[in-house]
Amino acid sequence: MMKLIIVRHGESEANFENYWTGWLDVDLTEKGIEQARLAGRKIKASGLTIDCAFESVLKRSIKTAETILYETDAAFVPEYKTWRLNERHYGALVGKNKDQMAKEFGVAQVKKWRRDFDEVPPLTKDNHFDRRYDLLDPRLISKGESLHLTAQRVIPLWQDQIAPQLLDHKTVLVCGHGNSLRALVQFLEAIPTNQVDQIDIPNAAPVVYTFNEQLEITHKEVL
Amino acid sequence: MMKLIIVRHGESEANFENYWTGWLDVDLTEKGIEQARLAGRKIKASGLTIDCAFESVLKRSIKTAETILYETDAAFVPEYKTWRLNERHYGALVGKNKDQMAKEFGVAQVKKWRRDFDEVPPLTKDNHFDRRYDLLDPRLISKGESLHLTAQRVIPLWQDQIAPQLLDHKTVLVCGHGNSLRALVQFLEAIPTNQVDQIDIPNAAPVVYTFNEQLEITHKEVL
Repeated sequence: MMKLIIVRHGESEANFENYWTGWLDVDLTEKGIEQARLAGRKIKASGLTIDCAFESVLKRSIKTAETILYETDAAFVPEYKTWRLNERHYGALVGKNKDQMAKEFGVAQVKKWRRDFDEVPPLTKDNHFDRRYDLLDPRLISKGESLHLTAQRVIPLWQDQIAPQLLDHKTVLVCGHGNSLRALVQFLEAIPTNQVDQIDIPNAAPVVYTFNEQLEITHKEVL
Repeated sequence: MMKLIIVRHGESEANFENYWTGWLDVDLTEKGIEQARLAGRKIKASGLTIDCAFESVLKRSIKTAETILYETDAAFVPEYKTWRLNERHYGALVGKNKDQMAKEFGVAQVKKWRRDFDEVPPLTKDNHFDRRYDLLDPRLISKGESLHLTAQRVIPLWQDQIAPQLLDHKTVLVCGHGNSLRALVQFLEAIPTNQVDQIDIPNAAPVVYTFNEQLEITHKEVL
């Protein structure tokens, strides 16, 4: 039983207000917390037993994961919090309203920023440095990432941490963000880069992958 | 700055109903969650910045710690969940009402069970084995512990995990239980065993210890 459960965080304040967040540490809304509870109840009802959880270092991901762990009677399992699961860094777009930017730059450009594989957003001059990144090589603190750059930091987490847990027959929960999970899904399902714009990860909908010993997907189910 | 913050979990359903729990995994009450929030706000107001958290594998401790981490903007710090911080195992007393047992066995006996250093409760025939203890040597699954026996499994956690974090100048949060924390406090403050009955750890009141490089206490403050 090698099972991976991926869950995008529940609705955040930024989802609700429709602006880009990236590494900004916004909270879940009340609806987002309720969505996470529901995701947990679905996982429990499916009979899955979570053995460990991977989360970003952003609280909308952490709170989603921890809510799911409570709901599935698994609060005691190890949690691994890592910047590698952070949302894609949206550079100078962070804090900007998506509709407003569509008016200014056009719908096509906004779609490119959001969905193209290699499109890097305008870089930020700010950095969102805070103490959670103190032990990161400063070169890893982005000023703006494409999905491609995001994938380059997500995949090593899969290779070094998640895959070994699966090969040890653990049931693994990964709570991430729209784009860190798109990167992971693209990798796992071997989706060509010109089709990544079609990958859509809805908030708090658990997707369960079953793997064989070669870590090939044998089953995929949305709960 | 070598700071240790110890916090007993907030009010649990068992505190409220006045029965012994030990390793039973009861939840916090609404009041208990509010107490944990308040503890977090006190820690934040004191200017302390938590770097990592130690918790038992029981959810009243985990939820208290995680609530404090959210309130102090530290949700992203590493959490270490360990049976070594579990409440003392109360053997066959688990689930029994304290007042009822005082009527049956006398107030003096109940006080001995609760507060004596070497008093082992009547052993249970049940075991509270579940998957969270799957990787523990079965000999470590207790059928009833004295405070002395509890201390013998808490102190190695201090020696191997907590002390090194402090010596690395981390600010460490430890969320435990009435008796696992009494054992730790007795050890840290070198309180004679015939005085341990006077150590009282109230729910959700943060106690902050400051240490010197020899890990001697230089300051103690209840927030």
